[in-house]
Amino acid sequence: MAQQTLEVTQATTLKEKPNPATLEFGKQFSDHMFMMDYTSDEGWHDPRIVPYQPLTLDPAAMVFHYGQTVFEGLKAYRSNDGDIRLFRPEENFRRLNQSCDRLCIPKVNEEAMLDYLKELVKLDKEWIPTNAGTSLYVRPFIISTEATLDVSPARTYTLMVILSPVGSFYKGGIDPVSIFVEDEYTRAAPGGTGNAKTAGNYSGAYKAQNRAADHQKAQVLWLDGVEKKYIEEVGSMNVFFKIDGEIHTPALNGSILEGITRKSVIELLESEGMPVRERKISIEEVIAANESGSLQEVFGTGTAAVISPVGRLEYKGHDYVINDGAMGETARWLHETLVGIQTGELEDPFGWSVLIEG
Amino acid sequence: MAQQTLEVTQATTLKEKPNPATLEFGKQFSDHMFMMDYTSDEGWHDPRIVPYQPLTLDPAAMVFHYGQTVFEGLKAYRSNDGDIRLFRPEENFRRLNQSCDRLCIPKVNEEAMLDYLKELVKLDKEWIPTNAGTSLYVRPFIISTEATLDVSPARTYTLMVILSPVGSFYKGGIDPVSIFVEDEYTRAAPGGTGNAKTAGNYSGAYKAQNRAADHQKAQVLWLDGVEKKYIEEVGSMNVFFKIDGEIHTPALNGSILEGITRKSVIELLESEGMPVRERKISIEEVIAANESGSLQEVFGTGTAAVISPVGRLEYKGHDYVINDGAMGETARWLHETLVGIQTGELEDPFGWSVLIEG
Repeated sequence: MAQQTLEVTQATTLKEKPNPATLEFGKQFSDHMFMMDYTSDEGWHDPRIVPYQPLTLDPAAMVFHYGQTVFEGLKAYRSNDGDIRLFRPEENFRRLNQSCDRLCIPKVNEEAMLDYLKELVKLDKEWIPTNAGTSLYVRPFIISTEATLDVSPARTYTLMVILSPVGSFYKGGIDPVSIFVEDEYTRAAPGGTGNAKTAGNYSGAYKAQNRAADHQKAQVLWLDGVEKKYIEEVGSMNVFFKIDGEIHTPALNGSILEGITRKSVIELLESEGMPVRERKISIEEVIAANESGSLQEVFGTGTAAVISPVGRLEYKGHDYVINDGAMGETARWLHETLVGIQTGELEDPFGWSVLIEG
Repeated sequence: MAQQTLEVTQATTLKEKPNPATLEFGKQFSDHMFMMDYTSDEGWHDPRIVPYQPLTLDPAAMVFHYGQTVFEGLKAYRSNDGDIRLFRPEENFRRLNQSCDRLCIPKVNEEAMLDYLKELVKLDKEWIPTNAGTSLYVRPFIISTEATLDVSPARTYTLMVILSPVGSFYKGGIDPVSIFVEDEYTRAAPGGTGNAKTAGNYSGAYKAQNRAADHQKAQVLWLDGVEKKYIEEVGSMNVFFKIDGEIHTPALNGSILEGITRKSVIELLESEGMPVRERKISIEEVIAANESGSLQEVFGTGTAAVISPVGRLEYKGHDYVINDGAMGETARWLHETLVGIQTGELEDPFGWSVLIEG
């Protein structure tokens, strides 16, 4: 998997860039994309940047039938002085390979991928919005392309990276979300694919997401797939609880996604002398802590929102208000600090923010 | 969802048909395919038969990222006198809609789909091989096509049906398979997508399939996702046990696929006065029954193999031989009877076999 020469084919006409004030998530894409192919004979080969364009696939391409596919999500930020930064991108390619392992997809060269990504982002840098809260969402993904209905790992794949300018997750200030504790549908079980970023985990969650919406809740709080007792994730975010001044989060157990924002929150709090307790946390414990007044904050962590405070929680027909429905001080500090590091407005003692131009 | 007029565009050049003696599963496809689109405004519309051709999709098409897709599998048979039959196709479209429900995909008109399928199979009838054990495998599937990275049900879909001539599953006689009892990886858990035919269930199983192969076993025997104690499926088949003259099969529990061959086996045995006991069956019970000599047969049921006897089973490092590694009389009778009904060689008192031409 030595690094290969990147071929660049520039688009001859450039698309009009969207208004940064009205951006939606993941609906518009930049002028170029990265592609690379895999065959069992040649391995990963032909890395190239090409104009953003449709894919042509046989109807029997395995991705349509057996879902052998993995993806990642990260963001590029641009400051008003033109500095361009990626946030911990090496972690995304490390996790991409971890997902590949679970789905029996051949691994990629992580260092080469980071270099290719830098070239792509630099080429399309005018697509990175600079307004507060905006960024360029980066979506690397791999699909199995072999045209056969045989149920076994494919022998051909394509890796792509597409770029989408995204708006502020919080238009008009951070508004805590309400969540619905799901005790019927399961996101993931031990031995399943829960800690891989693979397609089936996401569409499998829609049914529960619709039910949460029916209850006027924005997100699902997922319990473990075995006892339906221990908290796993919120929507597609990891989740943290502040109880009696201490921060707690569900320990990684193979069915919880190993969030990069989760990891950063833990490292950030530890650097401030606030160790995070990673352990099994039952929903009953959280409800009891809320009733007794010891539950001070609940917040989700993820690439899209960075930090998403939870203001309300429904469990077994009861609605519980958390911290009077307001964002807590820890969530606020984490949000400001992480966004500050991501955008380059705050100093980065951790070396998380990778300056690729500036 | 009223039935709409089917548009047929015939291929101008026809492909060479493969040698029926050397057919592989799902590698070659017929001259035509069926397509139909869905938009939230128009519902399912524009049913059409077109030459088999590649699909063109945006790289952001949701199927690549979030796996919102379902499929079915059934077979068409052609006799030497030209009779063409489908086996219980209405059950496949019923199950397709059941899968759609779990994946939040808009349902299809089952009767209309059956009519469209008949037209497609009749048009490509020369692709149905007639050699013993061969058939035309029919693969209906639906993919989400909307180009957005938003994690929610798509607003546009395409349904396709492709056809692939397949060879005899048993080249040179029925050879009982060996299976590996998987006690680490999970296929499905309660509240998950196990009883939907959706892509992620299949690629999520590759890791275990590779481990079974490392142990020189052809298939995985899946245990339940909670206790890793009760038997669920074998490979992508349902599984039956003959113990002390009685037939037992795991009861449907939401994580087991509701196989149409499974259902047919149960109905067939019941019609012969052999009721099937649908219940929870632990792996320990099966091992004990084998040790005591009361386990007479184990066999899988599915569209591909119809009946697949199990001759050897590995559990926790021990290999157990079942029925001296031979096919049992019940499996053999079921295989002959089902294949006879499917091909029209035996009388069909159940009305399962749908004659579409002849």
